[in-house]
Amino acid sequence: MISDTDQEMEKRGLGAIVVAGDSTFGNPELYYVIGAGVPRGGVYLKMRKRDPVLVVSNIDAGSARKGQVKEIETYSEYEYEKDLQRYGRNRAQTILYDKILRRHKAKGKVGFYGKVEVSSFVSLIESLRRKGHRIIGEKRPTLLDALRETKDSMEIERISKVGVRTERVVERTLEILRDSSLEGSDVFYQDKPLTVGRVKTHIRRFLVDENLVNIEDTIFAAGPGSADPHYRGEESDQIRAGEPIVFDIFPQEAGGYCFDTTRTYVVGKPSQEVRSMYEAVLEAQSIALDNLREGANAKDVTGLVCDLFEKRGYKTPRDLAKGNEMARTTGFTHSLGHGVGLTIGERPNLSVLFDETLRDGHVTSVEPGLYRPGLGGVRIEDIVVIRKGGLQNLSRLEKTLEL
Amino acid sequence: MISDTDQEMEKRGLGAIVVAGDSTFGNPELYYVIGAGVPRGGVYLKMRKRDPVLVVSNIDAGSARKGQVKEIETYSEYEYEKDLQRYGRNRAQTILYDKILRRHKAKGKVGFYGKVEVSSFVSLIESLRRKGHRIIGEKRPTLLDALRETKDSMEIERISKVGVRTERVVERTLEILRDSSLEGSDVFYQDKPLTVGRVKTHIRRFLVDENLVNIEDTIFAAGPGSADPHYRGEESDQIRAGEPIVFDIFPQEAGGYCFDTTRTYVVGKPSQEVRSMYEAVLEAQSIALDNLREGANAKDVTGLVCDLFEKRGYKTPRDLAKGNEMARTTGFTHSLGHGVGLTIGERPNLSVLFDETLRDGHVTSVEPGLYRPGLGGVRIEDIVVIRKGGLQNLSRLEKTLEL
Repeated sequence: MISDTDQEMEKRGLGAIVVAGDSTFGNPELYYVIGAGVPRGGVYLKMRKRDPVLVVSNIDAGSARKGQVKEIETYSEYEYEKDLQRYGRNRAQTILYDKILRRHKAKGKVGFYGKVEVSSFVSLIESLRRKGHRIIGEKRPTLLDALRETKDSMEIERISKVGVRTERVVERTLEILRDSSLEGSDVFYQDKPLTVGRVKTHIRRFLVDENLVNIEDTIFAAGPGSADPHYRGEESDQIRAGEPIVFDIFPQEAGGYCFDTTRTYVVGKPSQEVRSMYEAVLEAQSIALDNLREGANAKDVTGLVCDLFEKRGYKTPRDLAKGNEMARTTGFTHSLGHGVGLTIGERPNLSVLFDETLRDGHVTSVEPGLYRPGLGGVRIEDIVVIRKGGLQNLSRLEKTLEL
Repeated sequence: MISDTDQEMEKRGLGAIVVAGDSTFGNPELYYVIGAGVPRGGVYLKMRKRDPVLVVSNIDAGSARKGQVKEIETYSEYEYEKDLQRYGRNRAQTILYDKILRRHKAKGKVGFYGKVEVSSFVSLIESLRRKGHRIIGEKRPTLLDALRETKDSMEIERISKVGVRTERVVERTLEILRDSSLEGSDVFYQDKPLTVGRVKTHIRRFLVDENLVNIEDTIFAAGPGSADPHYRGEESDQIRAGEPIVFDIFPQEAGGYCFDTTRTYVVGKPSQEVRSMYEAVLEAQSIALDNLREGANAKDVTGLVCDLFEKRGYKTPRDLAKGNEMARTTGFTHSLGHGVGLTIGERPNLSVLFDETLRDGHVTSVEPGLYRPGLGGVRIEDIVVIRKGGLQNLSRLEKTLEL
């Protein structure tokens, strides 16, 4: 977490860190150190054992002050606009960074982070090195990866609140499914066949009502398509009674924290096979939730999930590792979970592939799933905070297959 | 445009280019060369005078095929997953890039592009250099900046279509303003005072209906707040009769092209001062539209706009350049326009500060504005395509101050 910055800098032998970018949108590193959205981004500089400073455009000073950095400076204080006119963009940018590093007496190795256009930043970094700054790149996990990996109580509070809003979206979507009527395997809502497109339009409106965005679109995979865990559901797909629906929703508050939850539903009566898959997945998740805690190895916990699945006759990633290619598309075909924070793809990784010791403050998805091509899939996903002796589950949504 | 790639590579002495990233979302460079959204991104490689190849995760091969790259490969073909288990993420990634560059016999200097986490990519590039690859960073405009600067007919078609959808959102929002009733300076809609928050909720729903996103939120600045061109309008702001409303909306199709349009409206009767500002801005825009064409210098065209404004007694950036600090917040306080494509902040830049020769296929905003602290602002923005002898205006929305 952010309070570990000095400690991580010391461990990595860094005298200073810079986090930069032309926006905090799509730049989780910069958002993280600022703690607020700044439309045109800026330059964050922190020396070891000193308070950070953030340099932004004049018009963004107000946005910047909503974050956690106390010392805000503007480009104008560095005469950036004048240099821009005099020297053009590239040289003016180099001069700006050089002035910032010098004014604040940055010493030693300088880590440089942020999601930026790499070509021009490699060029910038090389220019700064020629001016004597010891800028370095880091392998992953970088210092920022390491800080972001465990969440402090403020971050957990924000993730949890996004969770409450996300679950309201799911509940409202369920009302539509529950208010539908069946004619054989056809599902009707307000007298018209219910398509995935219609459901998704409602989901998007519910997200708007909660002021959440889901840039990459919600997964609402109905029927055999749900056998592919990444299938998002085409607008024209028909919802049919008895077929599994994998509903995986992962929205974000404007430029900030994310949530991620999955439930699997069937309108009408599920087949015995889907029911068995559901029971296995639910039990697998329960085993995982019982065993995930500070100090546990996520690889071992994922192993317990695989044990259960294999005992019930399903393939797992261990089969794939032994060369059984069928396990690529059948059975438990993905990892157990991933970290959630400013993104839905961050550390820790919960899988059978890598050792991963769980730590207090890890926020991760726990999402076992089973898939059978031609039939469909079942996945159940909660978001949990790892604690000593157990976990805190941020997902409150009921787990029920039949609607 | 993308068909100029070989020519730009030759000009820059590049034997190959790589565009990379872990998603096309928030990575316009990668989206651009693929021509479609790929959730987990990939590695795009093109040698001079050869067709490009795109390497993606197995599960993204389908998404990748919707784009313009014909040759799609997967990480598995490079045994990436095995290397990942054997060597961990950093070394596996270096090996992957090394194998891709070698299999396709990349020669000479290799430009490296994309919006990525800079620290780990600087580290990756240094590892690849140690393996003998001549990876370079470029100053701006990079090769990708240069390609993206002029749009081909397919891109213009897409921008134009986003424009049609954006304008429908504006039209529907106007219906709300037109259906409002006045009591003195208070504005009521459906019997409740009309706040910016209520209007924005409708705008967000209209955007959903058009399947557009506006990640950074729409500007709906009502009253004196509109004197700051970057003020977005707080949810609690009241809409009042007679006060200017700057409505600036800049949505994007999921992961793709953007549009950007601004109109200024007054519910009820505007003051004489707002009316004068509006007439000056409209005339300024008209002068700009008449003079922007292939071969014109945007600095000169912006100069014509400044001439008009100064003649009418308004401050311009030329006053600021002469040291008149008042011109920072009063009068015409920003540039004339900016390029629009996969972002709303790209080349060309239309301002009095820099020479900028306009080229066929430039797509740019034309948005003069006037601001007076305490009173408010007026801005009118169209999106145009620069052509020989003139321009093609993609904005069809009526320009009218009074509703």
